[in-house]
Amino acid sequence: MTAAEFIGTDSPRPSRGACQVTVVGAGPAGVMLGAVLARFGIQVQIHDERPDQTTVGRADGLQPKTIETLQMLRLGNDLLDTGVKVFDICMWRSEKTSAGQPDLHRVGRQVHYPASAVDVLHPFILLCHQGMVEGMFVDDMRQSGVQVQRGSKFDTFSYIGTPGSPGPITASFIQSDGALATVQTEYLVGCDGARSRVRQGIPDTYAQGNPHDSYWGVLDGELETDFPDIWSKTVVYSEEHGSVLIIPRERNLTRFYIEVKQQAQSIDEAFVMDQARKVMAPYRLEWLSVEWLGNYRVTQRVAARFSDAKEDMTQSPRVFIAGDAAHTHSPKAAQGMNTSMHDAWNLAWKLNLAVRGLAKENILLGTYESERKKIAHDLIDFDYEHANSIANGDAQALAENFRTNIGFISGVGVEYEENILNRAAHGQVPSGGAQPGRNLPPAKVTRYIDDNPVDLQLDIPVLGQFRVLVLAPDVVGAASFLENLSNSVLMPSSLISKLSKAARTSYVAASRPTRPKDSYYRPERCIPLSDLFTFGLITSTDKSEFELASLPRLLSQSRWTVYLDNVPSLDTRGQTCTEKWVGVLDEKQVAIVNVRPDGYVGSIMKFNTAEETAGQTAAQHLDEYYGGFLQAS
Amino acid sequence: MTAAEFIGTDSPRPSRGACQVTVVGAGPAGVMLGAVLARFGIQVQIHDERPDQTTVGRADGLQPKTIETLQMLRLGNDLLDTGVKVFDICMWRSEKTSAGQPDLHRVGRQVHYPASAVDVLHPFILLCHQGMVEGMFVDDMRQSGVQVQRGSKFDTFSYIGTPGSPGPITASFIQSDGALATVQTEYLVGCDGARSRVRQGIPDTYAQGNPHDSYWGVLDGELETDFPDIWSKTVVYSEEHGSVLIIPRERNLTRFYIEVKQQAQSIDEAFVMDQARKVMAPYRLEWLSVEWLGNYRVTQRVAARFSDAKEDMTQSPRVFIAGDAAHTHSPKAAQGMNTSMHDAWNLAWKLNLAVRGLAKENILLGTYESERKKIAHDLIDFDYEHANSIANGDAQALAENFRTNIGFISGVGVEYEENILNRAAHGQVPSGGAQPGRNLPPAKVTRYIDDNPVDLQLDIPVLGQFRVLVLAPDVVGAASFLENLSNSVLMPSSLISKLSKAARTSYVAASRPTRPKDSYYRPERCIPLSDLFTFGLITSTDKSEFELASLPRLLSQSRWTVYLDNVPSLDTRGQTCTEKWVGVLDEKQVAIVNVRPDGYVGSIMKFNTAEETAGQTAAQHLDEYYGGFLQAS
Repeated sequence: MTAAEFIGTDSPRPSRGACQVTVVGAGPAGVMLGAVLARFGIQVQIHDERPDQTTVGRADGLQPKTIETLQMLRLGNDLLDTGVKVFDICMWRSEKTSAGQPDLHRVGRQVHYPASAVDVLHPFILLCHQGMVEGMFVDDMRQSGVQVQRGSKFDTFSYIGTPGSPGPITASFIQSDGALATVQTEYLVGCDGARSRVRQGIPDTYAQGNPHDSYWGVLDGELETDFPDIWSKTVVYSEEHGSVLIIPRERNLTRFYIEVKQQAQSIDEAFVMDQARKVMAPYRLEWLSVEWLGNYRVTQRVAARFSDAKEDMTQSPRVFIAGDAAHTHSPKAAQGMNTSMHDAWNLAWKLNLAVRGLAKENILLGTYESERKKIAHDLIDFDYEHANSIANGDAQALAENFRTNIGFISGVGVEYEENILNRAAHGQVPSGGAQPGRNLPPAKVTRYIDDNPVDLQLDIPVLGQFRVLVLAPDVVGAASFLENLSNSVLMPSSLISKLSKAARTSYVAASRPTRPKDSYYRPERCIPLSDLFTFGLITSTDKSEFELASLPRLLSQSRWTVYLDNVPSLDTRGQTCTEKWVGVLDEKQVAIVNVRPDGYVGSIMKFNTAEETAGQTAAQHLDEYYGGFLQAS
Repeated sequence: MTAAEFIGTDSPRPSRGACQVTVVGAGPAGVMLGAVLARFGIQVQIHDERPDQTTVGRADGLQPKTIETLQMLRLGNDLLDTGVKVFDICMWRSEKTSAGQPDLHRVGRQVHYPASAVDVLHPFILLCHQGMVEGMFVDDMRQSGVQVQRGSKFDTFSYIGTPGSPGPITASFIQSDGALATVQTEYLVGCDGARSRVRQGIPDTYAQGNPHDSYWGVLDGELETDFPDIWSKTVVYSEEHGSVLIIPRERNLTRFYIEVKQQAQSIDEAFVMDQARKVMAPYRLEWLSVEWLGNYRVTQRVAARFSDAKEDMTQSPRVFIAGDAAHTHSPKAAQGMNTSMHDAWNLAWKLNLAVRGLAKENILLGTYESERKKIAHDLIDFDYEHANSIANGDAQALAENFRTNIGFISGVGVEYEENILNRAAHGQVPSGGAQPGRNLPPAKVTRYIDDNPVDLQLDIPVLGQFRVLVLAPDVVGAASFLENLSNSVLMPSSLISKLSKAARTSYVAASRPTRPKDSYYRPERCIPLSDLFTFGLITSTDKSEFELASLPRLLSQSRWTVYLDNVPSLDTRGQTCTEKWVGVLDEKQVAIVNVRPDGYVGSIMKFNTAEETAGQTAAQHLDEYYGGFLQAS
């Protein structure tokens, strides 16, 4: 891939280790981090002590936002093809009749993700077990030329020089034959689970959170039953025997979650079956086969630090933890795998820019902890109430907890706080669904060049770059603004030009791998001008009113990312992309939405095209925003 | 897979050859036929003289109905992922100005498949070259345990005994080492292209059709150009230099079609480039690379016979031709690969039932020729006008030809005539889009058991079985009708019961292969009662008003094919499935739509549930319909 506009001439940032990023643990967070970094062209190693990937059991649910994230990577089609989709939730309640017999009846059935409550492209939970997700990323890494190093158990790490000095980290691993291997690495990421050894090497990572522990039995098996709702997510509560959570699974399996109050009880297969039968009487439950029994204790906990950065951010972090290493909670709301993967997703692009010397390292990498620790706390706060209302059989409390948190549960409601990356519009309160620090709402538009209807939030491939999306309802009327914006941005003295030049130098020295499907996907179409920025246009002007060649160079060169805003949303509101994202713009207004490489909104700016120098002003605002956390040398 | 309801005890029909079906030619028709037969559990061999599948060039366009057909087989996701989608057509015209310079300008741009004109799930042409399609089916066959025998050139066939006798056919093949191999086979299908040797062995297969020949140059290459519309399907007509058809391709390729009037002209790469440059002046055309040059003569022709059956149908056909072996035409409307595949699609299920002894062989197999020969004639009639209007640059005639034929071009407008399979409703004119002999219109419904929204025409897996879909708006009011229908159909003396019993015997003796993804797809869910029939219910009654267990056995056992008709279509009409298929039914009405294994509507019946014996009558009508072409012994 080439970005011909900016010819890099300076030397790229020198490497500080034999390996740029070393990942410990090949669970969902680890393999996702590895796969994304490998796509970005980063030298990454993944070590895992297990001899093979997860084959059965463990985590199983992908939430709407996670599916969408996979689709941003052009992954997940196989999972959508083979997984089970849960669209509804059923609640049942068993009460003792006067005759002493249990009366079990359905007390509610509702849509899991109603369109009126949450705006997602895939309004369902996708059930597919952890091993399928791991396998997908392992295969994806292979296509970038990276393989998981299995049978390699992380032991310890040490800084060469002092903590925070620019020297590499030495990480040591015990191989399956007992030999010790060491790796010199610029960054180390512990995705090594709840008992993380990487975490133990970071000072002050004591747990914060709820001291409440719970004990779980989880059983996957093929069922013969006359209970009607095993293909929905179903909560069954019995006054006498407690509650059971039922989740349909791929390959005709059904999962039962049973919570037990005391650790003393021995949670084996017979116990879970017996408990389920008691709760669900008088329905018949026979297991044709059992695939997996999980039996574990859950502590709701968030690590105090997600990295080795100093609190005052004067020192750039070098060691990170993600996923279960950083936070643990109950499995009931099907969040674990999702939150873990989004830790990796948040960290990957920041590490890429740091390794390439394009970031103000301490500032950008510092946002990993601040952004993800907030989400982990949001999660355990929600999870505590959620798990309690399931355990107590309080259908109303559960429904209310669910309603309040539906955005969060789906993943699209995740909100990062205002920081250097997430900045409110200049003097304006954003009036649409695109809000700094939040996911970009789904929107359909038509790609100008080939008239293909596309999901805009998914259309531009993930290459570690920012998206600078110009929303100009009247592209003809905004001609002068766009011309000035284009000239100012492309001027060699602009920060965007300088950053793009530095990025070109870096990607020439360490390019993204050419992957087998790239000849079909043509990712280079979306970075014709810069490795670091995709420029795009979204306009309500009719296709017949303008030609791509008539646009100023910033946009005419970006011909695969010019979109027509002519596909109203299918819901009752029928909003266009512009209306949905930034509210109604009048003809003289232009908005610029800066989208982070992870698809979260960075900043939103609005300009009045009637002002003569608005184009130049916009370019200055862009430089100012990106200058907050990026650097060209 | 098991269908427990009918325990077969009789012996299955004895085999008449070492191989049940032998296919000559591994082009799109041959591999599709092989793949579908292999899925049905038929012993099939595919021979091809070429050492490998097509790698470049040749056919490239899949039409909406073809994509849908692939999706019925749960195939095509990879093609949708990697192919190019054409949503619009552009027309350009070059006129000489008074100064002698060409004035080339766009004269039209329109949506290819507007929703107002044609009702398809995928309103685009999918460009992906023939080798990708062949590769998909070759891989699919491998999953059923069948491999293409390459380097095996068909030579000749002969009947053992007399033509039409029940003895096998002997087909001989010349192997790559020159050795002759023979195969004894029950049926032989020639998918061996325009110069078919199988066709030559069938008496009276002289060509019918248009004597007009045309000569074509086709060039695939990567282009550098300032012409703006190479990512649409584009016709460029020059008064002086003739016309060019431009088709965007996967992997950044552009295809040019140039028609030349006389065979004398040598059509090489330089000629096509030169001609394209002349027509498209003053735009710049530079080829960065060339992948393929095609240079061929097209004769519009349909073979007089598609099989060796006698005209009077007293003798069952044993040898068939399909695809280019049966019909040839110009490539301009991107029909060839599609029509060929649909020949195979039409033949596959009929051969399956014939091999299994479940069909009135001469009647069912006879419909292959009558149905597909009509379509081939429809095709060349359309193609002749279409190709002419492109060649003459008559944009208006082209647009009109296109508008008139859009259903046919998309594939969904294909209509088989009334015959024993395609039968109008008893005394009624069908008032909806489901018409005997036509494709089932797309419709979205909600699957009762798991609340998944599904495309009903795609949801039930293709297993060679018929679908008996009961449309009962008021399932509670129709309870008595449904109970009677269920009892009558499941009575051992019903033809459906007898057929199902015979089918069970056959599938026990020769089962469908267990394929790797079956453990996810669970095809057995849709044939719980019979290998030959999937019974289904579509109702407007609210989910809360009835339970699956409360339905009569025919439907309660068919729990994965009970659907809620609660998803209005997205177009302006907002029709439900029932309205779309059979028009508005009142509360007392029930319709039964019998769907052939290829997804075409077989027959439609309507009943008044207020009539006491309507359920029994419906069962009789079913027996009568299926008795027309099926037999139980």
